[in-house]
Amino acid sequence: MSQPLKVAIAGLGTVGGGTVKLLRAGAERNAQRCGRAVVLSAVAERDSTRLAALPIGDAAVFTDAARMAAEADYDVLVELIGGANGIAKTICERAISARRHVVTANKAMLAHHGTELARAAEGAEVSLRYEAAVAGGIPIIKALREGLAANAISSLYGILNGTSNYILTTMRKTGRPFEDVLAEAQRLGYAEADPSFDVDGIDAAHKLTILASVAFGCATDFESVHIEGIRHVSPLDIEFANDLGYRIKLLGIARMTEVGIERRVHPCMVPIGTPIAHVDGVFNAVVVSGDFVETTMYEGRGAGERPTASAVVADILDIACDRGVPTLGVPVGSLRRIPAAPMEKVRNCFYVRLMVVDRPGVFADIATALGEHGVSMESVLQRSRAPGEAVPVVLTTHDTEEGALARALERISNLGTVLETPRIIRIAALDGQV
Amino acid sequence: MSQPLKVAIAGLGTVGGGTVKLLRAGAERNAQRCGRAVVLSAVAERDSTRLAALPIGDAAVFTDAARMAAEADYDVLVELIGGANGIAKTICERAISARRHVVTANKAMLAHHGTELARAAEGAEVSLRYEAAVAGGIPIIKALREGLAANAISSLYGILNGTSNYILTTMRKTGRPFEDVLAEAQRLGYAEADPSFDVDGIDAAHKLTILASVAFGCATDFESVHIEGIRHVSPLDIEFANDLGYRIKLLGIARMTEVGIERRVHPCMVPIGTPIAHVDGVFNAVVVSGDFVETTMYEGRGAGERPTASAVVADILDIACDRGVPTLGVPVGSLRRIPAAPMEKVRNCFYVRLMVVDRPGVFADIATALGEHGVSMESVLQRSRAPGEAVPVVLTTHDTEEGALARALERISNLGTVLETPRIIRIAALDGQV
Repeated sequence: MSQPLKVAIAGLGTVGGGTVKLLRAGAERNAQRCGRAVVLSAVAERDSTRLAALPIGDAAVFTDAARMAAEADYDVLVELIGGANGIAKTICERAISARRHVVTANKAMLAHHGTELARAAEGAEVSLRYEAAVAGGIPIIKALREGLAANAISSLYGILNGTSNYILTTMRKTGRPFEDVLAEAQRLGYAEADPSFDVDGIDAAHKLTILASVAFGCATDFESVHIEGIRHVSPLDIEFANDLGYRIKLLGIARMTEVGIERRVHPCMVPIGTPIAHVDGVFNAVVVSGDFVETTMYEGRGAGERPTASAVVADILDIACDRGVPTLGVPVGSLRRIPAAPMEKVRNCFYVRLMVVDRPGVFADIATALGEHGVSMESVLQRSRAPGEAVPVVLTTHDTEEGALARALERISNLGTVLETPRIIRIAALDGQV
Repeated sequence: MSQPLKVAIAGLGTVGGGTVKLLRAGAERNAQRCGRAVVLSAVAERDSTRLAALPIGDAAVFTDAARMAAEADYDVLVELIGGANGIAKTICERAISARRHVVTANKAMLAHHGTELARAAEGAEVSLRYEAAVAGGIPIIKALREGLAANAISSLYGILNGTSNYILTTMRKTGRPFEDVLAEAQRLGYAEADPSFDVDGIDAAHKLTILASVAFGCATDFESVHIEGIRHVSPLDIEFANDLGYRIKLLGIARMTEVGIERRVHPCMVPIGTPIAHVDGVFNAVVVSGDFVETTMYEGRGAGERPTASAVVADILDIACDRGVPTLGVPVGSLRRIPAAPMEKVRNCFYVRLMVVDRPGVFADIATALGEHGVSMESVLQRSRAPGEAVPVVLTTHDTEEGALARALERISNLGTVLETPRIIRIAALDGQV
């Protein structure tokens, strides 16, 4: 047997606590798998009640993570503090420069500084692993970086934020509005006090940034992600979607196109018959298409103490077994430079909800505006009649460019008979059968 | 850059041809990922027309695979000939004893000789990899052996044979009987001239044997798999299943129980609302539950030139990148000795279809026989009436032991009013939400 692998964990919150428990529960199995023991050598945590509740054995205890990173005896730093910058980034950089491996669940840090950290890890010849940063326990980073490594990936999309998916699922099942369901999710602990990262699509965009980088072998580029959240999705939209044969999901989508890489997070209508439409509640799912493997799908719990700990410890075991892989799938020097596809060039079918005055000629004006901008209508739906009053009207378009629709909608918004800002939801043109 | 990795492929059929094409298409990417080139150094194929159609470059050409294994210059032998014994096993053993790595898609060989080959590979300190042997392009072996390595796996189940799934899907959609759909599948090339491996569950049992071994860290044990195929599934069963809220799928199931490991392949009724129920046609899917990750699902194409080649080349890249892993997840010396759970102790709910004479008192006799053997009935369904004549009757049971139901059905078969052998289909008690 080789020397034990010494692990230092910074942050014993939900995921850190789960990781400590799993390292303890799987100690014997881990030693068999890797031919060496994996031992907890140090932890950093300010909250002493958390410490007391966990089987940390004789690990050295620090209250200051920076001090642990600098002084403790460890081979792998497990960073579970979070935040794109600050202490999390400081200790990762510190560990790397001291030629220690790093395992992290920190999607914000990787989305903003992934390439920079990858370069540092490569220079120091250490591993930087982050399976837990995307889709909880689903081994999607491993699937992309190793399992599908032989493929040219053409696209991926997924449900990457469990909180949003829980809210959308509950809205559909109960017919209640967003604010209501969000408040309940906060009471139940499914949503944070500040829900913005989850419901405004930022968390999903962090994860999409990482997935796109690994899938296409290019730098992490958070700035080029188009981000919309779910605050504007109304019960009315969910009802109309159902009538049209769709479910509304917050998707992260990355596609390789002729004009560059699309990276976008937004609510999306997906056909009820597709597997992704049935991924409800806090579950995550990712669908990946490659030139040889065609389409594959991965589904599981996207968060939580135990599923996320499963991903953290899998990364630790890969390090213990000396299974190396470049941080972003290829060495930083081989990352491809592919432009971001401009959002106005992205093509989709659209669902458009308008509030209009129910009056003869309204449809004609709308249809004319669309036609003048080259947008071809597929269907119009007005479910109630109230002559002279405001009624919701829904139309769907054929495949069209974002830019053309935006110009048509600007024109339509200025019609005197159109009363509110038009709401759009893209209709998924998803690759593959899965 | 390190030395190129030299690959010798035995068998240029569908998968071998795809592998040659993918190695060529991905040459640049592969070199970047692994820091070394992956080159085709030799091929063995008797059919010269196959050779002529493939970009084999300056690879040495052999007509005899054994000779290639003995004489060619290679680091990795890719065995794509097939068959549990014979030339396939001979060349794998030969390569291993010469300290060459082996990649294979040969599920029959691994199901029958997996532990023996794993021991040999371990002794020679080489890799034996077989991602392509199970579920085509889905990286399920990697997920089990590495991605979920931190977990104690409690169960897995899956649709592991695309041909059977295609036949069952087509039977459901068209209402046509098994023989009819099988003949069509044979004409279309979806089923072999001798369809037994696919439709009698043997192929699925090979794959299940491998999955169970890796999931539970025990020896490959094909002999203990209970195997039933789909020949007895009738359009009537499919119709009744639909009425009861189920789809019929041929599942491979492996579960860790208190009395040992269950390994079984048989048609199964799965609730229409579950994701596995929607895996249609030639797709495969595997659902895995572990103590920390909870339930995860993996779906994709289970066969075909390109998806299977994706898995073969992923294995080659793992070798090129020097990512080692014990063949069965743990060293052979650490494999657990866990007894096989006897099939008569396996618990399920059951669907039972009887052909009975439509006469007062028949139900009472059947119910008595069930009750006497401790089998509790959940529902009875007789859809047509024909007094004095034969009619199909379907009953479902509550959770019961196989053995108890078998004894009850023996008694029922002997009733004068029961005309044919009762047909049973197990109703899935599937773990997890996915």
